[in-house]
Amino acid sequence: MSLLVFGHKNPDTDSICSSIALSHLKNQLGFEAKPYALGEVRKEAQFALNYFKVDAPELLTDAKNKDVVLVDHNELAQTADGIEEANIVEIVDHHKVEISTEVPISIRVMPVGCTCTIIYQMYKENNVEVPYEIAGLLLSAILSDTLLFKSPTTTEMDKLACEELSKIANVDIESYAMEMFKAGTSLDEFSIEEIVNMDFKEFDMSGKRVGIGQVFTLDIDSILAKKDDFLAHINSTDYDVLVLAITDIIKEGSYLIYKAGDKVISDAFSVDASQGVFAEGVVSRKKQLVPNLTTAIKNI
Amino acid sequence: MSLLVFGHKNPDTDSICSSIALSHLKNQLGFEAKPYALGEVRKEAQFALNYFKVDAPELLTDAKNKDVVLVDHNELAQTADGIEEANIVEIVDHHKVEISTEVPISIRVMPVGCTCTIIYQMYKENNVEVPYEIAGLLLSAILSDTLLFKSPTTTEMDKLACEELSKIANVDIESYAMEMFKAGTSLDEFSIEEIVNMDFKEFDMSGKRVGIGQVFTLDIDSILAKKDDFLAHINSTDYDVLVLAITDIIKEGSYLIYKAGDKVISDAFSVDASQGVFAEGVVSRKKQLVPNLTTAIKNI
Repeated sequence: MSLLVFGHKNPDTDSICSSIALSHLKNQLGFEAKPYALGEVRKEAQFALNYFKVDAPELLTDAKNKDVVLVDHNELAQTADGIEEANIVEIVDHHKVEISTEVPISIRVMPVGCTCTIIYQMYKENNVEVPYEIAGLLLSAILSDTLLFKSPTTTEMDKLACEELSKIANVDIESYAMEMFKAGTSLDEFSIEEIVNMDFKEFDMSGKRVGIGQVFTLDIDSILAKKDDFLAHINSTDYDVLVLAITDIIKEGSYLIYKAGDKVISDAFSVDASQGVFAEGVVSRKKQLVPNLTTAIKNI
Repeated sequence: MSLLVFGHKNPDTDSICSSIALSHLKNQLGFEAKPYALGEVRKEAQFALNYFKVDAPELLTDAKNKDVVLVDHNELAQTADGIEEANIVEIVDHHKVEISTEVPISIRVMPVGCTCTIIYQMYKENNVEVPYEIAGLLLSAILSDTLLFKSPTTTEMDKLACEELSKIANVDIESYAMEMFKAGTSLDEFSIEEIVNMDFKEFDMSGKRVGIGQVFTLDIDSILAKKDDFLAHINSTDYDVLVLAITDIIKEGSYLIYKAGDKVISDAFSVDASQGVFAEGVVSRKKQLVPNLTTAIKNI
């Protein structure tokens, strides 16, 4: 019996890394197993694969008539085409479950931040050594899923796993995570105009035409390096006020580039406004950017 | 958070022993946990509890508003009343699953013969020593669920667990299992007539009025010790032919006490008939007792 191991469609770093790490564990325990991906590997996972020199899993097109292991998902809507005619032999996951089987199968679900935390546990339980590159991938997935332990889903078990894995993978947790997040959220392939319009909404505030764009990235430096180009584009628009918020989810705040009087921005976000200023705690357009600007513009 | 740990309604030996063993493991790991039973402890489990000097779990009447751990079952129909208002935090089971949760919880399901095999595995994974009496209960449950490894659900993992546990519990697997099965299937509290009529069916075979009773027990000796009393009762009935099959599921055959000519019994079951004769391989009334007797009676 050869096992196909895969995560969910539109795979994230956990889906990619957990399929590789569990396949390796199965191999060490004497089972034939091979990782697959149900979609293109995204930038963040690709960074981890490159860093630890591991090949990306092959793309799986059809699970029909195969013996499969599901990682990082358990709901049929998220899994491979042809799953109705596949033989699900095992599930390893950290999500809420919606599972119904005809026969007993192996199921391992734990309420932790990342599937890879469970898989690391399984290595330990089976006394199988975690090699350097597998440690690196497990670590990458846990840091990704827990957003460097900032996600409320983070548990002590996730943190402990990362501590141990970082020693095997020989990386500093903080700096490796930031490097990976930067690579994963890089906007390098987009133009100034594309970034401003990526998630852009228009509002009427006290008769003024106001536009607010927001992007989430951790590759802040390369955005701020082009601050003048952003500003030139923003100023060339015919909005009365335009604010581009570059939101850093780790620092939990947004860098602001704007077409507006400094006083409006200072009033709205309690900052000493200048182009590229960091507005601490401001991460939501709906709950912070829009109401704060509405009030500040009305009071000008 | 104090955990209530329990198996299914109408609890078998696995449900009782796995709730006690998992509670002990939780306690060793620093969690408050207590075993409960969803019904009266049956004779087999009571034998194991007596043998290893462990108190029976208290009866649980209502799980409402409690933090609960389900062992040896996962379907809501089999679990405690009030479960809809309970907080299920963990499931350890070896059955097919029908689980749907709102949030991620701990789930450990493995396709092995007994929940206690999984729990023994969890002791090892957590490096928690299995004490004598817990080893005895785990062993009892595995022998019970696998019917001393005769059940097709038995896996190598179940056998290996029993080997290791029998050393800690200081018992011989075969003889302990037989003693437990005897206690569990004892018919001591029933009268001769009750035993004959326990599962009794009447047939017409070539114009003869034929009755066939069947009981499953491993306490064969105490039945055969009363052979003459059974025979006196059987002969006093007005059936033309009456066969009582005392089926031994471990030896896979039935001891026969009968009102019939020896030749009919010899022909029907290829034995040298005498009262209490063992008919090897004969375990099914529908597939063996009825058709074989029908043919033998027709050919007399």
